[in-house]
Amino acid sequence: MSLSTKPYKGARDFYPEDKRIQSYIFSVWSDVCQQFGYEGYDAPILEPTELYLSKGNEEIITEQTYTFSDRGGRSVTIRTEMTPSVSRMVAGRRQELAYPLRWYAIPNCWRYERTQRGRGREFYQLNVDLFGVAGTAAEFEMITIADTIMQRFNADRSMYVICLNNRRLTNYLLQDYAGFDPQTAHAAATLIDRKKKLAADDFTKQLAALCTAQQRQSGVIERLETVLDCTELADLPEELLKHPSVEELARLLNNLKQSGIQNITFDASLMRGFDYYTGVVFEVHDTHPENNRSMFGGGRYDDLVSLFGVAAVPTVGFAMGDITTLNFLESHELLPADTSETDVYVLLIGDIAIEAQSAIQELRALGLRVAVDISGRKLGDQLKTATKKSIRWALTIGPDELVSGSYRLKDLHSGNESAGTVNQLHAVILGQKG
Amino acid sequence: MSLSTKPYKGARDFYPEDKRIQSYIFSVWSDVCQQFGYEGYDAPILEPTELYLSKGNEEIITEQTYTFSDRGGRSVTIRTEMTPSVSRMVAGRRQELAYPLRWYAIPNCWRYERTQRGRGREFYQLNVDLFGVAGTAAEFEMITIADTIMQRFNADRSMYVICLNNRRLTNYLLQDYAGFDPQTAHAAATLIDRKKKLAADDFTKQLAALCTAQQRQSGVIERLETVLDCTELADLPEELLKHPSVEELARLLNNLKQSGIQNITFDASLMRGFDYYTGVVFEVHDTHPENNRSMFGGGRYDDLVSLFGVAAVPTVGFAMGDITTLNFLESHELLPADTSETDVYVLLIGDIAIEAQSAIQELRALGLRVAVDISGRKLGDQLKTATKKSIRWALTIGPDELVSGSYRLKDLHSGNESAGTVNQLHAVILGQKG
Repeated sequence: MSLSTKPYKGARDFYPEDKRIQSYIFSVWSDVCQQFGYEGYDAPILEPTELYLSKGNEEIITEQTYTFSDRGGRSVTIRTEMTPSVSRMVAGRRQELAYPLRWYAIPNCWRYERTQRGRGREFYQLNVDLFGVAGTAAEFEMITIADTIMQRFNADRSMYVICLNNRRLTNYLLQDYAGFDPQTAHAAATLIDRKKKLAADDFTKQLAALCTAQQRQSGVIERLETVLDCTELADLPEELLKHPSVEELARLLNNLKQSGIQNITFDASLMRGFDYYTGVVFEVHDTHPENNRSMFGGGRYDDLVSLFGVAAVPTVGFAMGDITTLNFLESHELLPADTSETDVYVLLIGDIAIEAQSAIQELRALGLRVAVDISGRKLGDQLKTATKKSIRWALTIGPDELVSGSYRLKDLHSGNESAGTVNQLHAVILGQKG
Repeated sequence: MSLSTKPYKGARDFYPEDKRIQSYIFSVWSDVCQQFGYEGYDAPILEPTELYLSKGNEEIITEQTYTFSDRGGRSVTIRTEMTPSVSRMVAGRRQELAYPLRWYAIPNCWRYERTQRGRGREFYQLNVDLFGVAGTAAEFEMITIADTIMQRFNADRSMYVICLNNRRLTNYLLQDYAGFDPQTAHAAATLIDRKKKLAADDFTKQLAALCTAQQRQSGVIERLETVLDCTELADLPEELLKHPSVEELARLLNNLKQSGIQNITFDASLMRGFDYYTGVVFEVHDTHPENNRSMFGGGRYDDLVSLFGVAAVPTVGFAMGDITTLNFLESHELLPADTSETDVYVLLIGDIAIEAQSAIQELRALGLRVAVDISGRKLGDQLKTATKKSIRWALTIGPDELVSGSYRLKDLHSGNESAGTVNQLHAVILGQKG
């Protein structure tokens, strides 16, 4: 029996046409990060399992990860997200690093999911983090980067909305305003995180189940739901408006709008899944009717680095996945046309692969990316291959051309043909580029 | 107890200074591959274990891999090398792909090794493969690419040697010339692969153990050892000289030398570990006395794609690891000076992070990569941070500068200071670049 050619279930092969799209997405990500002074870093895809056990993630570890014992009996987990790794690295050099620290990475992450359409087991994710800044200038920068990436993808402001909230406001809302004890407040937060996926009735029912009879009678459910529907800070009840986190949100919203980000809004029900957030959280929503969902987001997490036994480092960060990004670009028709990385395809007449080398090396020395058809097939078949590979220029070399030093060049886009020396043809190609 | 800040044993964290070196190596690899018309591809880091069980690799699978069962009971293995994955992918689209097919990737691979100094459990590896060409023009191209990469790293021809051999010659040598049966020939090949790591005596002893009494008496050991020491084709015994694989090697050596690769030699004892090679094999040796070892290599493997139940595809490829490459560059002092990806570090006087945004965005729009110190610390501390981050240019913005539109710029390399508008300072920076 022969081996299967399929990749592991839920994982993706990247054939060159897929890889080109991935490279486009990654290059936009990297370019914007570097433009804002962020430095690349990386960490191993395998981490000791303990790293993911902090912050009450036991359920995720046991059900949704690739966790196993290595041959020395050590429990290891394939990375599910980058935040624990980057916190570990910063903690490891807490004293030596120069703050503010701006880091980015594009790790491959794995989660064990029952496979279903559109749901993979692995993904790539841009991670952007700013360490060492306690003030909202950090949030301002982080949201500006997220927005700049969307703009660099040529997204229109109508195609996405940025939602903003603050965990400190949520905590105050649940513990002081609604009067939940910390444990019930946590359960309520988890429920709010799923609010958009639930029918309104279901949400109310589940919220009621968390309330005491006294809370229900005093109208806590209605008051909470009114707040959670707020998308304008001004609509919050007086008691919440006075909370310092609201003033912080107001300033941030105002600064971001003034800098040109009009498509930003407050959303009192925004939670962001992870427990580790401690302040502002934000999320970018795709407004396309086909998607209409959260694309990515992030927020402030000031406590993670201190889990490693060093002083806390104020941190703001976000992560953006390749699959949701690709869905966004496809739905809004923003993907650039597919073009080969190769500029010129050289067709050979006869067995002259070696003899043709010096002309080919001349083309490469001029900066052109050149593939050569050394298959020994007929010229017509070689030309078909050039077309199939989406390469624009075909250059023919035969024994006569080797003698004369004059070659034939065909533009496979326009069909135009030229002839000349390597330098002359290079000028023709440059003239058509860009 | 707090969490450990160490990465998993045998794996590496890449802090920004390490990541910059990695990015340099990866960019040389990618640039050269693209120059030769190769297209990027990728495959998942997890593969079904069966993929590695072909070609008699059971020992490697059970002892040297990260193999485990997923939650659905399927056995999976973390990629140990890329060749099985790329063969799987080509087989999966055997009919649709346009040959010659030129593919490259830089996968992360893992092998379970007892950890020791200089021996990691994970590495990155450039994989370059050319599918669909049976003639030696393929080997010529592959070795030219390997050599071009070394040249692009600014390596001198005295720093490395390229060794060449042919598996078909080795097979003939062991089975016909020495008279071993196929199984003993395989054992002898494995022994020859370890020859350079063994004392001469030990090698002879172990070779003798594979011979029959009759073979020993007829002088097979001496005759084999004489051949294995050959580094000139002309020194081979008459009987071997007539073998077609020798003619092939002679032509290839000659063509490569004529194209300028003088540091290439025949080596009759060159085996390259993997069983899957079927023809020419080559290896690049580091000549530095500290290293003096094989750096990387490859060869022809025509049978792998057919393991997936499709017609065979002639293939030549090589793989080059990041760790040996880094050792080479360090030993020969070829690593470029470490410089930040960030061009300008903006120092702020007072709480003006938001107000300074428009000047900063202007700098970015001009193509500069700009980080801002939003820590609120004293100017002197901010300047120290710029120096610590190896950023060349420091630009100061305070309330006065915001009013005047004239900013102060300091070249932290030369100590020179300038003042002017964003456009004027951009010209100063451009004048010093490159």
